[in-house]
Amino acid sequence: MVQPSRRAWDMTDEMGAEKSQLDTPRLVLDLPRLDRNIERMARLADDAGVALRPHAKTHKLLPVAERQIAAGCHGLTVAKLGEAELFAAHGVRDLFIAYPLWGARKWERLCKLAAGADIRVGADSYEVFEGISSAAFALGLSIPVRIEVDTGFGRCGVQTTDEARALARRLTALPGVRLVGLMSFAGHIYRTEPARRREAAIADSARLVEVAEALRADGFDITEVSIGGTPSAAHVAGMTGVTEMRPGTYVFSDRDQVALGWGTLDDCALTVLATVISRPAPTRAVIDAGTKTLSSDTASAVGGWGDIRGHLDWRLASLSEEHGVLDVPAGGDSPPIGTQVEIIPNHACGALNLHDRVAVVRGEVVEDWWSVEGRGLVR
Amino acid sequence: MVQPSRRAWDMTDEMGAEKSQLDTPRLVLDLPRLDRNIERMARLADDAGVALRPHAKTHKLLPVAERQIAAGCHGLTVAKLGEAELFAAHGVRDLFIAYPLWGARKWERLCKLAAGADIRVGADSYEVFEGISSAAFALGLSIPVRIEVDTGFGRCGVQTTDEARALARRLTALPGVRLVGLMSFAGHIYRTEPARRREAAIADSARLVEVAEALRADGFDITEVSIGGTPSAAHVAGMTGVTEMRPGTYVFSDRDQVALGWGTLDDCALTVLATVISRPAPTRAVIDAGTKTLSSDTASAVGGWGDIRGHLDWRLASLSEEHGVLDVPAGGDSPPIGTQVEIIPNHACGALNLHDRVAVVRGEVVEDWWSVEGRGLVR
Repeated sequence: MVQPSRRAWDMTDEMGAEKSQLDTPRLVLDLPRLDRNIERMARLADDAGVALRPHAKTHKLLPVAERQIAAGCHGLTVAKLGEAELFAAHGVRDLFIAYPLWGARKWERLCKLAAGADIRVGADSYEVFEGISSAAFALGLSIPVRIEVDTGFGRCGVQTTDEARALARRLTALPGVRLVGLMSFAGHIYRTEPARRREAAIADSARLVEVAEALRADGFDITEVSIGGTPSAAHVAGMTGVTEMRPGTYVFSDRDQVALGWGTLDDCALTVLATVISRPAPTRAVIDAGTKTLSSDTASAVGGWGDIRGHLDWRLASLSEEHGVLDVPAGGDSPPIGTQVEIIPNHACGALNLHDRVAVVRGEVVEDWWSVEGRGLVR
Repeated sequence: MVQPSRRAWDMTDEMGAEKSQLDTPRLVLDLPRLDRNIERMARLADDAGVALRPHAKTHKLLPVAERQIAAGCHGLTVAKLGEAELFAAHGVRDLFIAYPLWGARKWERLCKLAAGADIRVGADSYEVFEGISSAAFALGLSIPVRIEVDTGFGRCGVQTTDEARALARRLTALPGVRLVGLMSFAGHIYRTEPARRREAAIADSARLVEVAEALRADGFDITEVSIGGTPSAAHVAGMTGVTEMRPGTYVFSDRDQVALGWGTLDDCALTVLATVISRPAPTRAVIDAGTKTLSSDTASAVGGWGDIRGHLDWRLASLSEEHGVLDVPAGGDSPPIGTQVEIIPNHACGALNLHDRVAVVRGEVVEDWWSVEGRGLVR
């Protein structure tokens, strides 16, 4: 369907603007902060001698992928086949789809992709690997796969070492896949009190390494032991047996990551600009950003809906779809209607996913506009 | 930026399919249910002799707007100027922007729109109305406006009758706007126990009518008294003094609306198809729908993350970005990998907002595909 100049007005403020002049609500990405985050994680991985394969579900942005690769990442992780197709079409040759793909259409797309790039897939069941194998073998392909292990998050993944060993054995009968490693998401840390977070991250990784060793003892050539998660990264990078990390959110960081111990609020590169559009009461300011611009993602480690950069004493108390209710001080410092605010979201991945474009800034100057090419690629 | 055939694969299942054959996750709209919901609210308003101006933020779909107008709605409500522009460009001539518009760019766009269609705007401050007035007067326009009254939800709106009267008086000095009515969102009901919901809805409306009468006593010609909200609609449609209702979510309905007393789960027209992609434990099934396909919107009146149509005993216990964890019974009836499930979301507006297209079905047959034209129009 043709969409005649539907977003024409949306482009009017896209040239040479100051950040403070942008119309709101507006997603903004600060380039120096982004580059600092990319560099920090790259150095952390490099110092520890562990491979870095960032999860691109966080950013869905081609220019960010380019920057991560340029900083030394050997490839990317994605959650969706559509994301893999997007990045592969734009030159990323090494992709890990950390998600169980089901169904003939997805297996067909996977094989098409795997014929032209280095594609790994993670899953936790014989059924999924069998489907992939059948499609791949018919085309003369052998796709490297990783078994997902549930190290305690309670989502996907084989539950026990014996299950991992049994699945590995069954995979030997599947000619279109070859087992190369294990993966897990180090999710314990999201549910652990501050004093025990390091211990939780290490426990997740130690469990994965333990399963890898059991499989090696059975004769399997497990060369890739891959751990996901930003807040666990600093804790597990140097662990013996871990070969790869897949942090995603670090690239922007957000309110939750800071609460979990990753950097400071000043490191957060992705924000939402909003404007005070109503002052109904002395301590209530209503802004034009709600769940349709920030998402309704909560933070695991801190309450509330977002922080206001430069005004951490203001409290984003509630969100509707297009409204945010901000508790502010009464009196002289109270923000009048028209005041622009910059929100550090609870969850950068959720906020990014709601926007088609992001204003790329360096300090107060808008340097570029990037399309969120991966948004909406849910299959 | 050119996006060469980026979604080509996405269209492969878009012709003549059975619903059960759709690739997942996939947003689905059931046409008979949609039409039943549209008809039900139209009849409710008609029987009560109250005007119906549905809030289109729920659906953002041109074909749904057409159906609402065809069912007798005199116009639409929107939250965003971009939504107003979209619907006006496609023939909707009577639009109420129930949102305080701030800034010269938005006022300019508003005036352009108001020059060619019947546009009303709601706000609660002199500042916003003054900005609109200046832009409108310069072009020889007079824009009809409604004062928003906070009848208890605690978001936007003047707080007292005296504030409403004072604002109405100040508006008489603004040549580019003319006061025609009042609006409020009957939001109390979302926070009220079941036995007192009717009372809460009536209290919201009675408060708005009371303010309208006070303004009339001051000599203002308040002809429009407009109440928003689906769950309050049946309670307030017949109230003396209410002239218009602005329900939005009724058009699809969702898990929360049902819990609040609007219809049954069988009435819910908008669902997300998903597939079981992992069975890590006897009572745990993981599906390929998470917060990026359902949103992380909670329901105000019921816990959990969604209901599974036909399996109300299964429990959607948690969501990650691309995963949903489903508690299922162990044993023979436990869904194997590959099972398709149909999720009734907590909040239809939030789920719709994440998708570019919706599969339009009649029972099990896919009849059409609609573009979510209004998605992403956040300004």
